[in-house]
Amino acid sequence: MLQAAVARHPGLQLRPHLKTAKSREVAALAAPDFGPITVSTLAEARYFAEAGWRDQIYAVGITPQKLDAVAALNAAGAAVKVITDDPDAARAIAAHPAGLPALIEVDVGEGRGGVAPEGPALAAIAAALGPRLAGVISHSGHSYEGRSIAAMAAIAEAERAGLLAAATRLRAAGHAVPIVSLGSSPVAMHAASMEGVTEMRAGVYMFGDLFQAQLGTHPPEAIAVTVLASVIGRRPERNTLLLDAGALALSKDRSTAAAPRDYGFGLVLDRDGRPLPGEPVVARAYQEHGEVQGRAPLPFERLPVGARLRVAPNHACLTAAAYDRYHVLEGGAEVVAVWERVNGW
Amino acid sequence: MLQAAVARHPGLQLRPHLKTAKSREVAALAAPDFGPITVSTLAEARYFAEAGWRDQIYAVGITPQKLDAVAALNAAGAAVKVITDDPDAARAIAAHPAGLPALIEVDVGEGRGGVAPEGPALAAIAAALGPRLAGVISHSGHSYEGRSIAAMAAIAEAERAGLLAAATRLRAAGHAVPIVSLGSSPVAMHAASMEGVTEMRAGVYMFGDLFQAQLGTHPPEAIAVTVLASVIGRRPERNTLLLDAGALALSKDRSTAAAPRDYGFGLVLDRDGRPLPGEPVVARAYQEHGEVQGRAPLPFERLPVGARLRVAPNHACLTAAAYDRYHVLEGGAEVVAVWERVNGW
Repeated sequence: MLQAAVARHPGLQLRPHLKTAKSREVAALAAPDFGPITVSTLAEARYFAEAGWRDQIYAVGITPQKLDAVAALNAAGAAVKVITDDPDAARAIAAHPAGLPALIEVDVGEGRGGVAPEGPALAAIAAALGPRLAGVISHSGHSYEGRSIAAMAAIAEAERAGLLAAATRLRAAGHAVPIVSLGSSPVAMHAASMEGVTEMRAGVYMFGDLFQAQLGTHPPEAIAVTVLASVIGRRPERNTLLLDAGALALSKDRSTAAAPRDYGFGLVLDRDGRPLPGEPVVARAYQEHGEVQGRAPLPFERLPVGARLRVAPNHACLTAAAYDRYHVLEGGAEVVAVWERVNGW
Repeated sequence: MLQAAVARHPGLQLRPHLKTAKSREVAALAAPDFGPITVSTLAEARYFAEAGWRDQIYAVGITPQKLDAVAALNAAGAAVKVITDDPDAARAIAAHPAGLPALIEVDVGEGRGGVAPEGPALAAIAAALGPRLAGVISHSGHSYEGRSIAAMAAIAEAERAGLLAAATRLRAAGHAVPIVSLGSSPVAMHAASMEGVTEMRAGVYMFGDLFQAQLGTHPPEAIAVTVLASVIGRRPERNTLLLDAGALALSKDRSTAAAPRDYGFGLVLDRDGRPLPGEPVVARAYQEHGEVQGRAPLPFERLPVGARLRVAPNHACLTAAAYDRYHVLEGGAEVVAVWERVNGW
């Protein structure tokens, strides 16, 4: 679905972000034929480079201390590009003997990282990078605050405008700026125009989650990862159940707290992933206990201690990070494959 | 400090909970000579049993499906006791050929798991367990809501009274009830009397965290685990920094949101663990980015990109779970040992 949305824009390259999936098997689906990818940690960069994905952007501001690790990957055949919004870091990149390509991070409204498209830092960093400058990059994390498709489309257009303004300034100053990279899953889905942009990054779309479904990035039933849990306690008089999936199994992410529907720590589904009456949620999460609160009477008669349920995640990136592998299901409950993940840093 | 608090009560055994540390090296300090321990997952039970800690309580409600795994550990020499608050699960325990010892979980006010000390379920579960009944167990997680030492002492006394009421009822019905086990770090620190209780469980005290410090379980400077992070971005005009430690490195736990001081996603310290002016916190946590917000001007002159800082955790159990090992420091920054952890389930 997201691939189709990106394909609406002629010439726009999808550079999937593997920070959510962190899995070679998923990368083979999202970036077939070892196409360009985005990573968020050195551990991901190494893991995917060793598997054959050479064209990478390591899309978290680089430190001088990490340049040697990136250089080692590139010396072994990878083409990892780093990003920075800092003049001193830019000088360290330019001074590194490995000749590492770097993108300048541009702030298009989120206010997290990046330089202003119109400010003096952009020119200073470009001058410091010199021939190492490979492009500009932005992330519209604030698209997650969009509450309608129109609002997300407007954020996408503002991101494009800001990033292009930066690219235009740099080109006017004589820099080539081959890469113009932006993205987030909502922007990828809802952008009206991507003219002037060379590539789109998105990651969570591969799995989806309750928060993205609330944003309209995908339908709720398209969520591809769930946590399999067992009933460990029953309180029919309160219409609650305890699961052996708590904060460590689900994460304490509360993204949906500000969404139209608040799913607590996750939506509880039956063992085959189908909705339960009243759509119960994990209302409280302790380290290893999740307390399920029903809105309609829970079907206690078919939920003895030991019964299996599934929990759809608020935020797939954080929930998946609790696991070192995926069990791939076909037709409900049959495990047809086990896919590894690369966690840590 | 907690050991000393427990030692105030004659005959009371400390049964450390390894759910926070999940490390043999820490267990060797907390439960020397392979003393009794508490665990929260089958993975911990296996890991510690293989290392020599035989006397364990697996303190999360058991399911019938997990009994074979516990039985296998016990057949290999361990003495893992399970817990339940469910009559059907109790019948499955009693029917298991391995003869697994089980404790009945009693609700002493938290309302998470456990049966009421005075209700019919207690007697029904005891009757179902028969000779498998090894004792009663409670957890006063609501002690975390105590806002004064007097409030926590009162919760401790209520927990003791409830658990003893259950033990007394069972003994009157002819059961032996050798183990009377309760606890939490605040209760262990602040209980006035532990008469009739045989053992105390506590875990987070081994490391401490910002939330426990706010509760008065330990002084703030006693927090033993921090996350080492690097500056990856600077915004002097906003008095913010970006760190390469975000939601995955710190967890999204917001325990201190309801505490007297809200530390966001963690307290930022200098590289040697000393406070910074105005005690800045990680105010926003993205997957791999943490945004530090100063309350006093941040010392930007000594914080270039690449500078190291430490983040003290809101909730040590959740932050530690992001890592597969500890780097043990002596005298500030020298790593003198690496201690492994057992994550997962």
